[in-house]
Amino acid sequence: MISPRTRALIEMALSEDIGHGDVTSLATVPADATAVASLVARSPLIVSGLEVALEVFRTVDPTLEISTHAEDGDWMPEPAAIATISGSARSILTAERSALNFIQHLSGVATLTDQYVMAVQELPAIIVDTRKTTPGFRELDKAAVRHGGGANHRFGLDDGILIKDNHIVAAGGLTAAVTAAQQEGGYLLRVEVECDTLDQVREALAARADMVLLDNMSNDELRQAVALCAGHAVAEASGGVNLQTVRGIAETGVDFISVGALTHSAPAADLALDF
Amino acid sequence: MISPRTRALIEMALSEDIGHGDVTSLATVPADATAVASLVARSPLIVSGLEVALEVFRTVDPTLEISTHAEDGDWMPEPAAIATISGSARSILTAERSALNFIQHLSGVATLTDQYVMAVQELPAIIVDTRKTTPGFRELDKAAVRHGGGANHRFGLDDGILIKDNHIVAAGGLTAAVTAAQQEGGYLLRVEVECDTLDQVREALAARADMVLLDNMSNDELRQAVALCAGHAVAEASGGVNLQTVRGIAETGVDFISVGALTHSAPAADLALDF
Amino acid sequence: MISPRTRALIEMALSEDIGHGDVTSLATVPADATAVASLVARSPLIVSGLEVALEVFRTVDPTLEISTHAEDGDWMPEPAAIATISGSARSILTAERSALNFIQHLSGVATLTDQYVMAVQELPAIIVDTRKTTPGFRELDKAAVRHGGGANHRFGLDDGILIKDNHIVAAGGLTAAVTAAQQEGGYLLRVEVECDTLDQVREALAARADMVLLDNMSNDELRQAVALCAGHAVAEASGGVNLQTVRGIAETGVDFISVGALTHSAPAADLALDF
Amino acid sequence: MISPRTRALIEMALSEDIGHGDVTSLATVPADATAVASLVARSPLIVSGLEVALEVFRTVDPTLEISTHAEDGDWMPEPAAIATISGSARSILTAERSALNFIQHLSGVATLTDQYVMAVQELPAIIVDTRKTTPGFRELDKAAVRHGGGANHRFGLDDGILIKDNHIVAAGGLTAAVTAAQQEGGYLLRVEVECDTLDQVREALAARADMVLLDNMSNDELRQAVALCAGHAVAEASGGVNLQTVRGIAETGVDFISVGALTHSAPAADLALDF
Amino acid sequence: MISPRTRALIEMALSEDIGHGDVTSLATVPADATAVASLVARSPLIVSGLEVALEVFRTVDPTLEISTHAEDGDWMPEPAAIATISGSARSILTAERSALNFIQHLSGVATLTDQYVMAVQELPAIIVDTRKTTPGFRELDKAAVRHGGGANHRFGLDDGILIKDNHIVAAGGLTAAVTAAQQEGGYLLRVEVECDTLDQVREALAARADMVLLDNMSNDELRQAVALCAGHAVAEASGGVNLQTVRGIAETGVDFISVGALTHSAPAADLALDF
Amino acid sequence: MISPRTRALIEMALSEDIGHGDVTSLATVPADATAVASLVARSPLIVSGLEVALEVFRTVDPTLEISTHAEDGDWMPEPAAIATISGSARSILTAERSALNFIQHLSGVATLTDQYVMAVQELPAIIVDTRKTTPGFRELDKAAVRHGGGANHRFGLDDGILIKDNHIVAAGGLTAAVTAAQQEGGYLLRVEVECDTLDQVREALAARADMVLLDNMSNDELRQAVALCAGHAVAEASGGVNLQTVRGIAETGVDFISVGALTHSAPAADLALDF
Repeated sequence: MISPRTRALIEMALSEDIGHGDVTSLATVPADATAVASLVARSPLIVSGLEVALEVFRTVDPTLEISTHAEDGDWMPEPAAIATISGSARSILTAERSALNFIQHLSGVATLTDQYVMAVQELPAIIVDTRKTTPGFRELDKAAVRHGGGANHRFGLDDGILIKDNHIVAAGGLTAAVTAAQQEGGYLLRVEVECDTLDQVREALAARADMVLLDNMSNDELRQAVALCAGHAVAEASGGVNLQTVRGIAETGVDFISVGALTHSAPAADLALDF
Repeated sequence: MISPRTRALIEMALSEDIGHGDVTSLATVPADATAVASLVARSPLIVSGLEVALEVFRTVDPTLEISTHAEDGDWMPEPAAIATISGSARSILTAERSALNFIQHLSGVATLTDQYVMAVQELPAIIVDTRKTTPGFRELDKAAVRHGGGANHRFGLDDGILIKDNHIVAAGGLTAAVTAAQQEGGYLLRVEVECDTLDQVREALAARADMVLLDNMSNDELRQAVALCAGHAVAEASGGVNLQTVRGIAETGVDFISVGALTHSAPAADLALDF
Repeated sequence: MISPRTRALIEMALSEDIGHGDVTSLATVPADATAVASLVARSPLIVSGLEVALEVFRTVDPTLEISTHAEDGDWMPEPAAIATISGSARSILTAERSALNFIQHLSGVATLTDQYVMAVQELPAIIVDTRKTTPGFRELDKAAVRHGGGANHRFGLDDGILIKDNHIVAAGGLTAAVTAAQQEGGYLLRVEVECDTLDQVREALAARADMVLLDNMSNDELRQAVALCAGHAVAEASGGVNLQTVRGIAETGVDFISVGALTHSAPAADLALDF
Repeated sequence: MISPRTRALIEMALSEDIGHGDVTSLATVPADATAVASLVARSPLIVSGLEVALEVFRTVDPTLEISTHAEDGDWMPEPAAIATISGSARSILTAERSALNFIQHLSGVATLTDQYVMAVQELPAIIVDTRKTTPGFRELDKAAVRHGGGANHRFGLDDGILIKDNHIVAAGGLTAAVTAAQQEGGYLLRVEVECDTLDQVREALAARADMVLLDNMSNDELRQAVALCAGHAVAEASGGVNLQTVRGIAETGVDFISVGALTHSAPAADLALDF
Repeated sequence: MISPRTRALIEMALSEDIGHGDVTSLATVPADATAVASLVARSPLIVSGLEVALEVFRTVDPTLEISTHAEDGDWMPEPAAIATISGSARSILTAERSALNFIQHLSGVATLTDQYVMAVQELPAIIVDTRKTTPGFRELDKAAVRHGGGANHRFGLDDGILIKDNHIVAAGGLTAAVTAAQQEGGYLLRVEVECDTLDQVREALAARADMVLLDNMSNDELRQAVALCAGHAVAEASGGVNLQTVRGIAETGVDFISVGALTHSAPAADLALDF
Repeated sequence: MISPRTRALIEMALSEDIGHGDVTSLATVPADATAVASLVARSPLIVSGLEVALEVFRTVDPTLEISTHAEDGDWMPEPAAIATISGSARSILTAERSALNFIQHLSGVATLTDQYVMAVQELPAIIVDTRKTTPGFRELDKAAVRHGGGANHRFGLDDGILIKDNHIVAAGGLTAAVTAAQQEGGYLLRVEVECDTLDQVREALAARADMVLLDNMSNDELRQAVALCAGHAVAEASGGVNLQTVRGIAETGVDFISVGALTHSAPAADLALDF
């Protein structure tokens, strides 16, 4: 199901790419020419954004016939076709780049997520995303993280409480901030607090925070924080996480590791349209 | 000047991030609390997207006061503040993530472009972008490439003719495709042809194409293609371009080198908001 | 601050009321006639929607001068002016009805909420709203409830988990539903379960639900449920709540009483524009 | 037929209720679970808004199957199902509240209108609505009045001329206002004048107004005004109309009685979705 | 005052003309170059659309300084400047064509209207427009008619009743159609009937229609129809009206003459932007 | 295929014409009445806008059945039906005027273009349009020119470079302007220069402009300019072109003749809907 927000993004993408018309295809491709094109994964990747990419084709031309050979979340170890599009050659050529721009970005996110998930295999830590998504792509980027085996942190500012240093300063202290959040923050939202030190962790636990975000701590500190939290709060690590460091962090016993790079720095996956 | 398209993207970003409200800030930050925040470059980077990021703050709260210490296109070799935002603490906190998501992505594109441009320094080749931009970001991504010292290829499908293999097949041959484009493609558009072989280059030149796109050729082939084109057509190289290979390609004498990675695979630049 | 959603509602209201023009005012009121109008509360009420009503005037004519003598949330025991609008007589007449339609509805909601809040005075129960709001008015209706002294339950389906009978059936039992929600529902969302019987309350508590919604229980049952929940979960009563029954329900010790009528059946408050 | 304006309202309602997703249903209801739900009138009511409510379900999920057992305008004396919706359980649960919010409000308007219409049975007076509708609901509220047996006054400011006291002051007198309206107000619009006194009625008739709005007059005054108007103008009563007073007013012989409460103060009708 | 509909049309015009940028001005005009431009009437004309044209400039660049030397409705017998725009040369050049496209069309409508109005000078007939306007321009075209000295017929299908032959057939006769319209058509709308024969005029008058549209009648027939209508209904002539025939038609004594050509066939007026 | 921009224009047209409803049809035409209507060309014309007009009917009522007897670009020498619409009589009547307003304007443009094309028959000159189109109609007006046998100049400011006198002044001379455009104007855009004198033509050719726009030159000058351009640049004539002068201009040997009147002054073509 394509959400209204994703539909708006598709229309924006097509509008900026097509403008008043695909001059090259209109000039060189007969109006009645047909073609069969394969959407192909050319390197190992996790598929994400397939439904969106296909919707781009459908938006350009609802008469295109589409069949799929894979679905979002699938791991493609070998080069292989993941969908076939047939119909008007002009339509396929006009939609091609916009469709690829979606699926290459989203499969890139899914594939990078998969690498993090694989790196912590057999450890309990769950790889989660952040709000560091491409503007307009919140929903799609977060789905790509799930396709890659990760989990989603809160969607936005309205479905979870995460108290950071500036909130603490503004509220007059960590305990005051947690208390305010518990009283004013909605009866159905838990409270997470970003902590830079073990003392802050202790204060957060005393204030009955539900979750602590352990930011930029050493693995030693993480281990101590995990011990403090046990049975009282959920522990999430963030900061300085990359494919080299993530396993060490996971070994400290944290429940979650949040990784901004999943959505803000994933290179495009290698997909193409072959005729 | 913020274009209507960029404004739509800003509103989409804020809408998906804020939803019905920034619960944490509303609960913990007093309505009348004020703050002064610095938008800081934390690693060497080229600034891009500063105006957009600041417009995010203004959109959330038109009463915020903003001063800038750098502008789009500036090279920041050392960590430094590039803008200062002061006013309602709630407003600044609510806008923070969306603003950063824009400027981190766009400065990432500019900074990567700069690395390619530096790699071909003193050679005549110009680094240009492609249509492989993030959906919705065509205009912003292309500006970021310019901020990084690159140049822009065509904006979309409507302001240039680029004949690729599928157009050639559909038109019944390269010469036929070029002729069709010259006749039907608009009196003010030049014609570029993608060529995989030197024979195709020769055919394109004979058909009086204005520009050839030399796709995935070896440097030897590129050199021969450049010689064929001299004085008759502009030569652009693409395919297999990365920071290791780009200088060798530039040394073949091509006029342009187009690099998809500039816009589809640039990691986010390291910027943050310090209070 | 007028949110984009509220602005859209204002524009919809003006569009449907004005169509292609206020024929009467255009014909009978000279273009340069000016007027001073008072927005007046004619019966005791809680003000809500004043900012929205004034924005209606500003949208019709940004040159109108507006001063306010009260603000949202104020209790007006006597007939009194709450704002003065002066400027073009045509503009004021054209905006009048749309502005009144907003403030009469919203002050109606706030005033009815106040009556419920007064009815449970000195008892710990908090009066909360539901999602039974007028389509398009979610944000405004919920603000009106706060102006009336009530509190807001979740804003929508995305910022809280409330498991109802149909979810229980679909999940294969109450415990299964709570467990699924705890695992899949977002790390920062609490879980509330609607219970019709004390046995369900016991099962919900055993499954470690954070909150129970006691639906259509007798006051006796409510009292027993409150006892079961004490220290383990928050207890909310709903169903069969009206101004006659609400105090009795509050005396059972429940933490919250949710009242759909606040937003779906509040009669319009009595406000008018006097020239 | 769902108008564009109503469609916009449906999308606004779904957007504010669903946000980024129905977390509860996504967590607890399997993606392939199906359900059959009955939309049920639980108290005697006139149906209105059924088509809109069903469109809410279709908008959330076009694959839902819907059959109807009643239609807008029907009188449901006994609790009964008025429609059946079957298909994806998630979709039905997600759409439920928004659909009910529409039909409960609109059936409330229709049902209240019906009570007024019944109260003046066998008298010639026609119950009509006003422009005191819920913002965004002009079209739907006025349809609900028709479903309840009432008639519609003008739709907005552009399809009828109604001269009120402020227009009279601005135009320099009642006669001047009527004359201006006759000359400038569009060749196909009649002219109605609000009159507070019998002298004003006489002046309006002398100025050849087509219709007089007798505002807040006693029944004695109404009777005299009706006598004055006979054969010359249509007489409409307004002000101080409620279910207790309406029959007395109708007995004065007025042609129309306009009632703001029909649309601004109707309590929600009692409908629910049973699985 | 620029209405929302006009603003949408301005944005549509700029979007289709500018696309992703005014390449010529960006390349050849320095960013800081300024210019002073005069909007000039080059042939005798009635000004209409000046405010819209100036809003086009303001939309492109709010910093442009604008002064006006004439206003909508003014007759310019000699070539003369009607406005001066100064500021960024790029901005003025980018807005130029879109601004001229509006004012040339609208001044064309006003100027043609003026010719019809002059042709019937000293006769009582009023020149009125029709619904044959350019799509999107209803409001602007009708204002241009007023600027040219004409008057407006109904704005659209919702603010007047005009019964044509097909309505008569569908209703089962002219009398039946008029009666239905009187009963169902809104209390504040008059009823006009299109008549092709004098017999139809007689039937319309007997049914108490307020206005008759005498379609394609000879001047003799018009004279007889006028005599029939005298004191009972307003007479409007339409069909076969041009600058040669209009005075003869007016001499028959009809109250209104409606002319589709005013809005569907007015040639563009001659205006330009001089630097 | 109806583009999003055209769809927006259709919705704008219907919205402004229908408002809250077609009161006449609703009152006089039974809801279940059906009709068969013919869209008829009543004078010789070239059809353009047929697809748009039919989409207006489909937008009002998707259940209407439509068959076509001609297509855009067809020459109708005799009065004849070009399409048949059958279904709900109310729907057809409601859509009629908006549909006709589109097709009458667009067929007017196509028919006028055809007259110019016929006037230069057997000469090599091609009749082209300008950017002097009706706001909102760029795409449709340009298609109408093609239907009439003309060709399209650039679509807007972004897909071609046309240097006019003000660009020349701003750039510091014609040669400087051409050079700037060649360097900054996009690699795939040609450069056209507007020239008022033969000296300017010589300078443009020396600067290697691709195309010259010969503005308001005498036929003698045009002939000399054509001789200068031969083999070096394409020559386009503009200014003072009408049906009397166009053949003489074409005989000078210019490649293109651009005519603003095609799109800004074409009278409406004579089409109607017969029941």
